[in-house]
Amino acid sequence: MAKSQALQTNLDIDYVIVYRFAKKEKTKAIAQFEKLVEALSSVGLQTEVRNGDSHSVLLFARVASDEHLYGEVYRSRVRDWIHGVRAAAPPKETRDALDAEPLYEAERLRIIYQLITNPISEGGAGITPKEGEWKNVESIFALHDHAYNKDWIRKWTSSYFLKTEDLDEIRNRLGEKIAFYFAFTQSYFTFLVFPAVFGAAAWLFFGHFSALYGIVSCLWCTVFTEWWKHQEVDLGVRWGVRGVSRIEHKRKNFKHEHITTDPITGEKVGIFPVKVRLQRQLLQVPFALAAASLLGALIATCFGIEVFISEVYSGPLKTVLVFIPTGILTTTMPVLTGLLTKFATQLTDYENYETHAAYETALTQKIFVLNFITSYLPIFLTAFIYVPFGNIIVPYLDVFSLTVRPFAEHEKQLQAPGTSWTINPDRLRKQVIYFTVTAQIVNLGMELIVPYLKRRGFSKLKQMQSERAARNGGTSPAPSINDPPEDAAFLKRVREEADLAVYDVTADLREMVLQFGYLSLFSVVWPLTGVSFLINDWLELRADAIKICVEMQRPTPWRADTIGPWLDSLSFLTWLGSITTAALVYLFSNDGLGPDGTPSSICAWALLLTIFLSEHVFFVVRFGIRIAISKLSSPGLQKEHRERFLVRKQYFEENLQDLQKLPKMKEIGEEITRESLEEDARKSSLRESTAEERFWGRQRGWKETASVGKDLIQRADVETSVEGKKEL
Amino acid sequence: MAKSQALQTNLDIDYVIVYRFAKKEKTKAIAQFEKLVEALSSVGLQTEVRNGDSHSVLLFARVASDEHLYGEVYRSRVRDWIHGVRAAAPPKETRDALDAEPLYEAERLRIIYQLITNPISEGGAGITPKEGEWKNVESIFALHDHAYNKDWIRKWTSSYFLKTEDLDEIRNRLGEKIAFYFAFTQSYFTFLVFPAVFGAAAWLFFGHFSALYGIVSCLWCTVFTEWWKHQEVDLGVRWGVRGVSRIEHKRKNFKHEHITTDPITGEKVGIFPVKVRLQRQLLQVPFALAAASLLGALIATCFGIEVFISEVYSGPLKTVLVFIPTGILTTTMPVLTGLLTKFATQLTDYENYETHAAYETALTQKIFVLNFITSYLPIFLTAFIYVPFGNIIVPYLDVFSLTVRPFAEHEKQLQAPGTSWTINPDRLRKQVIYFTVTAQIVNLGMELIVPYLKRRGFSKLKQMQSERAARNGGTSPAPSINDPPEDAAFLKRVREEADLAVYDVTADLREMVLQFGYLSLFSVVWPLTGVSFLINDWLELRADAIKICVEMQRPTPWRADTIGPWLDSLSFLTWLGSITTAALVYLFSNDGLGPDGTPSSICAWALLLTIFLSEHVFFVVRFGIRIAISKLSSPGLQKEHRERFLVRKQYFEENLQDLQKLPKMKEIGEEITRESLEEDARKSSLRESTAEERFWGRQRGWKETASVGKDLIQRADVETSVEGKKEL
Repeated sequence: MAKSQALQTNLDIDYVIVYRFAKKEKTKAIAQFEKLVEALSSVGLQTEVRNGDSHSVLLFARVASDEHLYGEVYRSRVRDWIHGVRAAAPPKETRDALDAEPLYEAERLRIIYQLITNPISEGGAGITPKEGEWKNVESIFALHDHAYNKDWIRKWTSSYFLKTEDLDEIRNRLGEKIAFYFAFTQSYFTFLVFPAVFGAAAWLFFGHFSALYGIVSCLWCTVFTEWWKHQEVDLGVRWGVRGVSRIEHKRKNFKHEHITTDPITGEKVGIFPVKVRLQRQLLQVPFALAAASLLGALIATCFGIEVFISEVYSGPLKTVLVFIPTGILTTTMPVLTGLLTKFATQLTDYENYETHAAYETALTQKIFVLNFITSYLPIFLTAFIYVPFGNIIVPYLDVFSLTVRPFAEHEKQLQAPGTSWTINPDRLRKQVIYFTVTAQIVNLGMELIVPYLKRRGFSKLKQMQSERAARNGGTSPAPSINDPPEDAAFLKRVREEADLAVYDVTADLREMVLQFGYLSLFSVVWPLTGVSFLINDWLELRADAIKICVEMQRPTPWRADTIGPWLDSLSFLTWLGSITTAALVYLFSNDGLGPDGTPSSICAWALLLTIFLSEHVFFVVRFGIRIAISKLSSPGLQKEHRERFLVRKQYFEENLQDLQKLPKMKEIGEEITRESLEEDARKSSLRESTAEERFWGRQRGWKETASVGKDLIQRADVETSVEGKKEL
Repeated sequence: MAKSQALQTNLDIDYVIVYRFAKKEKTKAIAQFEKLVEALSSVGLQTEVRNGDSHSVLLFARVASDEHLYGEVYRSRVRDWIHGVRAAAPPKETRDALDAEPLYEAERLRIIYQLITNPISEGGAGITPKEGEWKNVESIFALHDHAYNKDWIRKWTSSYFLKTEDLDEIRNRLGEKIAFYFAFTQSYFTFLVFPAVFGAAAWLFFGHFSALYGIVSCLWCTVFTEWWKHQEVDLGVRWGVRGVSRIEHKRKNFKHEHITTDPITGEKVGIFPVKVRLQRQLLQVPFALAAASLLGALIATCFGIEVFISEVYSGPLKTVLVFIPTGILTTTMPVLTGLLTKFATQLTDYENYETHAAYETALTQKIFVLNFITSYLPIFLTAFIYVPFGNIIVPYLDVFSLTVRPFAEHEKQLQAPGTSWTINPDRLRKQVIYFTVTAQIVNLGMELIVPYLKRRGFSKLKQMQSERAARNGGTSPAPSINDPPEDAAFLKRVREEADLAVYDVTADLREMVLQFGYLSLFSVVWPLTGVSFLINDWLELRADAIKICVEMQRPTPWRADTIGPWLDSLSFLTWLGSITTAALVYLFSNDGLGPDGTPSSICAWALLLTIFLSEHVFFVVRFGIRIAISKLSSPGLQKEHRERFLVRKQYFEENLQDLQKLPKMKEIGEEITRESLEEDARKSSLRESTAEERFWGRQRGWKETASVGKDLIQRADVETSVEGKKEL
């Protein structure tokens, strides 16, 4: 099979399972492998095994019979309906259900993946990669559809804007969770056109720190955030996933404190007291404080050193020494963030959430705090510490003289120039440009190039290892040596894909949200931010597509109806933007030197009043925008409306048919005559009757009531006659 | 029938309809009356007519057959189920459905009321009191259940706290909407115990404007508001009404701009463009501004006059003249508020909402703005204008000298005492005490006594009229003159109830929310506020019960799952409280004279910083409280959980039965032998086979895969043997 052909077909394989075994425990590994194959077979999966890399085998699985898969699909759809994700129950005949609404690829892959990984009690095979008894199962992944991938990248790289159909395509292939990331980034990209154009105009005409730009930017951020919330609902309906976040997936690692019988379901369930969890969650406060202090101290120190070297130090090698703090940051920051992230994960584990969604949210919040500090603190330091208090602080910076003392020729080079020193108004702008242009480009490069280099290096290493092994006596032969020649090219490709990294969509989402933060918090410093981001995001969307296709294993398709906790981060950044923008405009509107020309004369109450007003105007405007956007109709909502109406109509018709048979009062009233009434009256006076019977016995039928009423109305204002009395 | 007996029974009457006719149009009135009776009969209601007051007849209606009513109940319950208010569809057999869940009185009355008033297209009789062709229908009301009312009042007046069962009782009798009012007031009353006790302690030990009291008070308000939101859900589930606000009731007065065919339902529907409505809603801004200026000007003027007279004026009659502004306020304010309320109603009409709920919300918001100004502006003026700027403003107050000039003996009595004048620090406290004690008592009295006097006056008037009529020739006889003697007492009672006012629960709710406002906004001024409110609300709850029983017609029971837009007002007041409390504590913490002893030395930036911090701490704390409260379980939520679980289980069982029949893979894999495999291999090599067939044909059944896998694992690290190749 030629290489190009190997990329053309996936040979009906649904999932590849990489089974890696230790040299020492082969017997155990063999027994466990047998169990694995049996478990897969028990849920209706056909298997084939081939040799993998050293110490691994590749197990291929596909659904044995369509009948069985359809059963699973039907089960999943019924579950959706019961949780309110679908308006109507799928038709009872499985085959009909699938004809009415064919399976899309991501749905198929998701269901098979769940079939493999779900607990046995829920009808799955219970294979949990890397965990417990299945720790030998290294990964479970589907094979890339190279023909589609090629098409995808070609299509995207040749168009400016993505259409909803392009996103539908992604949803059909990679599932809703990834599709939501692309939909978000695409919406953000489209919205960016406005701040890019307006920002360029502001940069050209309005001067620096323009209040008008600040207001428009805040407004834009608010509109975007609120609009995205609306769009999320629309997409959720369009993709039929609205409400899937309500379907809870229990975490396997959840540890219960005691077991009780659920009064509702009658099942034994593990309970973890809410109070204990709340107590553990309180640890987040010291964690956030500690993380903030650690990262803050590191950033502040480097910041101080940099200011000292660039603005105080006047000795030799200044141009080189100025990079010391950057060096410190780039080496220690990743280590520190790595440690803190690990700690955040442990803390989240310790908080012991019951569902995946709760766990993800808790972890995301912690990660956001860390990212917030590392991304924005340097600019905060410059804007709100260095500028207003620079005159007070800079003289104390000679504590950092230690770092450059060896290079100084005499003491004077290490001393602040006294009263003549002024703050550098350009520092803030330079810093913002660094974060919004340089850092973004570096980031984009890292995303594409680092995995590529890693992959190349890894394969080089392997080659070297096997060469060395060959030299040492050939104990470890190339895995491909046993391949049937016709499958060789295909298996080589599978082995390559098995080596790829696993795609994590939240990392990409985080990147976008943090980028949005620069725009909402600091773009008033440098209005061209929008232009930079517009270009960056066009590339980012394509780069992410390439990354998924080339650098990563094909992601398992998951469902989602939102970008999840990042939405809260987005709202938070928008709100904070209303404060920072107002503060920045007030502090720097006169070219970095405060409204009166010097930063020392900044009026604290005026600053606070500006912030206070800006924030509260923001609240009111956001309220208005929310209402206006909530009135917008959308294709998705209309679709939902229609579906629900049809379901309702059908139910009503089914349930209320029997009721039509009931008699209406009309037919009773007609045949009553004066005679029968008098008859009744006589009867009732003869036998004992209740007050009710007597009261309601006077007028029988509506015609009688009408005629008595007519009498009463006519006789009003006329003197009572004996006749009238009789009649009653 | 004796009077006591007349109060004991309602003679099976469901509703009384008061039909009033003009003297001039008797023929028309008679025709319309006939139509009315026929319409009622057509929906299965039996009728009896009796003479009413002058120019009115009383039409009694009751459900003719239980069968018919049950049909309506069933229909209503199916509708609930379809809208998601009930977890499960009611059993198909109507009788079973009612046996499983018997009808409660409020449900019965609501359904009959809807039967009378719903449009004919929806299965009702289409009677719309006081509107269109039914303008002669003055009112439709149910008769009081006097035995229950007596019990109710006796029970409540003899207990300190109400239990949930007491609220259930109200819900069963008067419907969920009124029950929600009582539940809210009761929750509020229970919560008040804390600020009453803590406030008393603060008053005794912490001195005035205690920061500690302010913090605790804000915290309490937040906990109460958030807890009530939680409680609302719980009660909604308990009473089976959670989600009823989703069932939309179209307004009859909605005017469409054009008619289109709904693409969803295929019905002709009137459309009113959202954009036009948004434009009309923008009129709210000038309305709010105009109302604020008008009311504000009136209040500020009276305030100015009062300050002038009490603090500047030194002539004779001062003790009397000081009541001038109160006099102006009490005479002009009701007129002005009345006009503005009317205008607000017209504006809301003009905004042309499609559903009742939207209309109510829009109107409530406007009314809240009006009430906010009239209730709180005087205190705001004192606290934030009079105290900080008193020294500047008071000298200008001699514009008000006009009001008292006639009484002054010489000019000097009209002149400000110059620099010696100081603000009166007691004014604020006196004002708060006035609003939280005096005004509350007056209000309570008004609620009970005014309707009583009105009723007495009205009946006196009637008596006089009929006496005069008798003197003038007796053209208008007493309506009772035609009553059958046995019904006379009963009919007298019905005529009395027909004269009563209609109960409006939103007015009572508004009162409670505004009261809460004093607590959240200003209680730091006078910590005994809580004590006053605690006493007041104990009485209020009982007074409202008495009011409903004695002063009002029996209210038509409506459903609700929330206190509606007032909930937003509650949140708003809590938030505003975090600002005003901080500001008050800062401004007055040193006994009304600012932190430095004189109000002039108040630091603007420190005040703003206090407010800013307080508000943001409030946001964080509210977020925390929300999370903590959302974790609380409650009987209601557990009930809902259980119901949904049972429904889910049932559906699953019904729908997934067929799936069990599908074959599992296991059975396929077992019987495959080496021989059959080799057979297959030979076959496949003979005929043309696809790559997929060849790939998947190598290992048949999981045992084969397992054994090949075993080989591969064992052979790892071992040199490839020719044997191994063969086997594959």
